Amino acid sequence: MSENGTLRRGRPGYDQQGILDVAVAAFIQYGYDATSMGVLADRLGLSKSAIYHHFASKDEILDRALDTALGALEGVLERADAAHGRAADRLDQVLRGAVHVLVDKLPYVTLLLRVRGNTEVERRALARRRAFDKRVTTLVSEAQAEGSLRSDIDVRIVERLLFGMINSIVEWYRPGGAEDADRLADDVIAIALDGLRMPTSNRVDELLG
Amino acid sequence: MSENGTLRRGRPGYDQQGILDVAVAAFIQYGYDATSMGVLADRLGLSKSAIYHHFASKDEILDRALDTALGALEGVLERADAAHGRAADRLDQVLRGAVHVLVDKLPYVTLLLRVRGNTEVERRALARRRAFDKRVTTLVSEAQAEGSLRSDIDVRIVERLLFGMINSIVEWYRPGGAEDADRLADDVIAIALDGLRMPTSNRVDELLG
Repeated sequence: MSENGTLRRGRPGYDQQGILDVAVAAFIQYGYDATSMGVLADRLGLSKSAIYHHFASKDEILDRALDTALGALEGVLERADAAHGRAADRLDQVLRGAVHVLVDKLPYVTLLLRVRGNTEVERRALARRRAFDKRVTTLVSEAQAEGSLRSDIDVRIVERLLFGMINSIVEWYRPGGAEDADRLADDVIAIALDGLRMPTSNRVDELLG
Repeated sequence: MSENGTLRRGRPGYDQQGILDVAVAAFIQYGYDATSMGVLADRLGLSKSAIYHHFASKDEILDRALDTALGALEGVLERADAAHGRAADRLDQVLRGAVHVLVDKLPYVTLLLRVRGNTEVERRALARRRAFDKRVTTLVSEAQAEGSLRSDIDVRIVERLLFGMINSIVEWYRPGGAEDADRLADDVIAIALDGLRMPTSNRVDELLG
């Protein structure tokens, strides 16, 4: 169950990832500050020293949890950059990929979105989020420059509204519901890139003309 | 400064609205539970009894604050319903109106969006939010039925994604910034209804054909 044998060193049932999952659920329920190592130990049915065997501190648990979400989002950007092609297509790929990360790592992204920068670990996570947002903003600029996205909206506003829509999914999405990640990603792309309104011929003339 | 003379009955500088503004800022900063009447009195430079002169309890302050946000959002729907006309145009009006409410009553809406239903006052506010969402969802259904909005996305998902985008504005909007409410409302409508992508002739054929 665990390649490097960490499971065997802990109590049965929890490897490092298992502890992380339980800790993230507790941080979301009670808040990070209110969740002591004692509360975590109770939840896990482990001693505090068994947790310290896997993580040096509560801060390290938070760091690893935020890195899980940020690493997955950054991976989406890496893959889109590697794909080359039109910027609009790469943006499409990034938005779809971000929806998948939200659905696949829902509690981790939920925790990331609540970070306010109260500790050094949180401030580093916020800096990585800002760097991610900046790279997406650059992608929007490139798509505007190549003529594939409308250029009458400030690129920073576009990026914020797009990720506002995507991030809001953590508020209501429940795994196993009617919408799987692929369908949800299609819906986000349909609204964000093509819009909800059926085009009138006036509107088509205006856009093409 | 106050039509009904409530200002004169309190200490100089704070009428009921002024106390509400300070309380909402404190609830956002510290959380509702962590903000005692003593903390509020310190912030206001008033005695607790001076606050009780205006509000029977902390719960009543929260109730009034949430009602400020909810009442404004419900007012947007009332005006759109009164306008009759095409459902798509009324939806346009509701989305624009909601952006204006967010910008005009930023702290009040921020507080509303944090409500999780821990008290009776919060549960009533959540019920009003759900009723609002349901009326917007009905409006989206009507717009799909009249053929003015694409009908290949579940109406509840449309409503959630639209308000996910709009509500995310509270995360970054700062009064006095480059974007005024009218411009921001235009941007939201441009993305949500018309989409970011410049239409290719293929896409236009697909939508019109």
